[in-house]
Amino acid sequence: MLNRVRSAVAHLVSSGGASSPRPKSPDLPNATSVPPATPEEPKSPSARRGIGSGAPAKTVEARASFSRPTFLQLSPGGLRRADDHAGRLVQSPPDTGRRLPWSTGYAEVINAGKSRHNEDQACCEVVYVEGRRSIAGAPKEPSRGQSCWSSQKDVTHESLIIGAIENAFQLMDEQMARERRGHQVEGGCCALVVVYLLGKVYVANAGDSRAIIVRNGEIIPMSREFTPETERQRLQLLGFLKPELLGGEFTHLEFPRRVQPKELGQRILYRDQNMTGWAYKKIELEDLRFPLVCGEGKKARVMATIGVTRGLGDHNLKVCSSTLPIKPFLSCFPEVRVYDLTQYEHCPDDVLVLGTDGLWDVTNDYEVAATVDRVLSTYEPNDSSRYTALAQALVLGSRGIPRDRGWRLPNNKLGSGDDISVFVIPLGGPGSYS
Amino acid sequence: MLNRVRSAVAHLVSSGGASSPRPKSPDLPNATSVPPATPEEPKSPSARRGIGSGAPAKTVEARASFSRPTFLQLSPGGLRRADDHAGRLVQSPPDTGRRLPWSTGYAEVINAGKSRHNEDQACCEVVYVEGRRSIAGAPKEPSRGQSCWSSQKDVTHESLIIGAIENAFQLMDEQMARERRGHQVEGGCCALVVVYLLGKVYVANAGDSRAIIVRNGEIIPMSREFTPETERQRLQLLGFLKPELLGGEFTHLEFPRRVQPKELGQRILYRDQNMTGWAYKKIELEDLRFPLVCGEGKKARVMATIGVTRGLGDHNLKVCSSTLPIKPFLSCFPEVRVYDLTQYEHCPDDVLVLGTDGLWDVTNDYEVAATVDRVLSTYEPNDSSRYTALAQALVLGSRGIPRDRGWRLPNNKLGSGDDISVFVIPLGGPGSYS
Repeated sequence: MLNRVRSAVAHLVSSGGASSPRPKSPDLPNATSVPPATPEEPKSPSARRGIGSGAPAKTVEARASFSRPTFLQLSPGGLRRADDHAGRLVQSPPDTGRRLPWSTGYAEVINAGKSRHNEDQACCEVVYVEGRRSIAGAPKEPSRGQSCWSSQKDVTHESLIIGAIENAFQLMDEQMARERRGHQVEGGCCALVVVYLLGKVYVANAGDSRAIIVRNGEIIPMSREFTPETERQRLQLLGFLKPELLGGEFTHLEFPRRVQPKELGQRILYRDQNMTGWAYKKIELEDLRFPLVCGEGKKARVMATIGVTRGLGDHNLKVCSSTLPIKPFLSCFPEVRVYDLTQYEHCPDDVLVLGTDGLWDVTNDYEVAATVDRVLSTYEPNDSSRYTALAQALVLGSRGIPRDRGWRLPNNKLGSGDDISVFVIPLGGPGSYS
Repeated sequence: MLNRVRSAVAHLVSSGGASSPRPKSPDLPNATSVPPATPEEPKSPSARRGIGSGAPAKTVEARASFSRPTFLQLSPGGLRRADDHAGRLVQSPPDTGRRLPWSTGYAEVINAGKSRHNEDQACCEVVYVEGRRSIAGAPKEPSRGQSCWSSQKDVTHESLIIGAIENAFQLMDEQMARERRGHQVEGGCCALVVVYLLGKVYVANAGDSRAIIVRNGEIIPMSREFTPETERQRLQLLGFLKPELLGGEFTHLEFPRRVQPKELGQRILYRDQNMTGWAYKKIELEDLRFPLVCGEGKKARVMATIGVTRGLGDHNLKVCSSTLPIKPFLSCFPEVRVYDLTQYEHCPDDVLVLGTDGLWDVTNDYEVAATVDRVLSTYEPNDSSRYTALAQALVLGSRGIPRDRGWRLPNNKLGSGDDISVFVIPLGGPGSYS
């Protein structure tokens, strides 16, 4: 995945398919691409496929297997302890090793037994992209014209980087489709990617991981989750425009409850793809079909099968006990949000927090912000271990501690039994952004 | 239109198709529906069709004709003066007449000659909707369950009112389709509707009119415009999923400039329906087609024809010199935003401003807020004429004054030559909300 982002950005900057490094360019300066953090979270009911971190593996089989991030530097013994579903030890990079870029903090913990491996696969890489003076086919300086075709549209460097990231997600998804055909690789995953380039942080999310910035105590959402509920109208529109995708088994309409055959001809509330409110309709035969989107909260499902609507892979996923494919309803495209680091004087306590759904299932934005404040205030601003300590505190806060009846939080509510991975990227810390 | 909203809300409240008034109900209290303001703005290149205000006319022909709002109480002479494209007198309800509800202010001016009639048709009505004790088929008290079908989804009164308004827009559009068949009624229009019910203001917008609240100097957007640019991805998705709608003449892809046949095989930047950024592709034969969405700003067009993507009517609209229908790309569904009047202690200077595009083409939100402050501060808080004075100032500020080369603003920029209609609804003024 990371390689896709890198090559897409490199392609963008060097253009024309040239692959050799180029000299610095004044119009697109010598660019440093630092995708500092990539927790990627497999998330669908079929077998999972993790995306490897760091150096690409040699074979499809190796790439499709799960592994711990190389920066954890786990020994064989450490790996066994990390995989213990009963102990659920929190894993972080060793203090003695090389720090992550910007002194980024990281912590992860395995699930409580729901799957064999930690399916939240993280990676982090520093890559360099060099520009060149003249970019053939690149946009000219923007000139805003009024006539439909008298001028060229304004294409900013920012929108080119966003496009390169979107492209990388799409190419990755296509690559997984190809590998699936040859090697019977199943499953899919969400992806949350952060790229730093030219003074801006790009956060790309496809799935139900989440990124927030905590800045001077203020919460700035840097992603939104893609679920059957948040994407209801997109899914319904697709079912409406392409009814063959519903296979005569599903209806694109939403009802507040399951419609009973004896209610035929009566009136019921419904929502279609155009509506945010509810209105009445007369119940017809087609309304007795199972709804395309049903359930609420964590139980919401597309076609009664999958609870996340964006991500990579899952090309083989079918509706339970049916041959109806679900992939057409899934989107591999991320939403990309941009944060300009130069627009604000950041202090060492300003951080970008990335977490997989295991974190957010039991901890909300405000609780994370409170933990940021509580933990960072106990460390010196120039202590570079403070961000790892914070990542660990966040993971522990969602995992809880083992009690008689499962993992429990201090308030005795259930902790998360899911895999949990957390990156904490300091925006004004001891790291260097150059 | 207003009747559709009224009957939809009445239907919702009385339920089951009962049409007679019902006694008060404790669970949905005796409701007062006050759609206080409805500027509706025809907006497409073909012949326009205004939607009548107030009492419904007897025949389709009458309903399809343009008229000034009844509350202006124009004499035949006044009507002639109001229709003078050279003088462009600003029209407001007479001081001597009955005030609009809540002392709402209103002003309008005709265009500078671009069309014969003032095509921004306003209306304002107070209607009453009565509830009844038991509502068959209405939602039960919300109970949040976890299983997909073990419980009923949470349906709020607010979402029922939103659904009724959405339904009203759809039914109105269908009615216009029926009338078109019998009577050769052409054209279409935008619609901006405000409904007050049960302490909340509902603002429904389909088109390029705009509503903002100015509260204690702060600007709260209550609508967004629907144009080929803001709806690019919806339009492209439709063209992608239903390529037959493009008739082999258009491509759903967007390019920064027109692609030339000699560029075949070269690389160019593009955006598809999934992308917000730009990426490169190799130019293929299909890319030489005209793009579905082209142009920028006020010149942006769908299929080189229409500049507004939501509204009512236009069932006959075709691509210029083609038989390709445009209606499939237009949506009649509004976005409905809700403002809870009870959540804030409003003062007499807090207002909801509704304006047709003639206002916003030359005056932005901040300038409107400045005018609100400037005008209202010169009137006593209990002077109920202050809101009409404000509406007039807003219309004048966008119209400008006639000079040698057209209508000019004080800064010598061009004023709007379009029709302009403005409502100013006080949120904490001398009016009564009961």
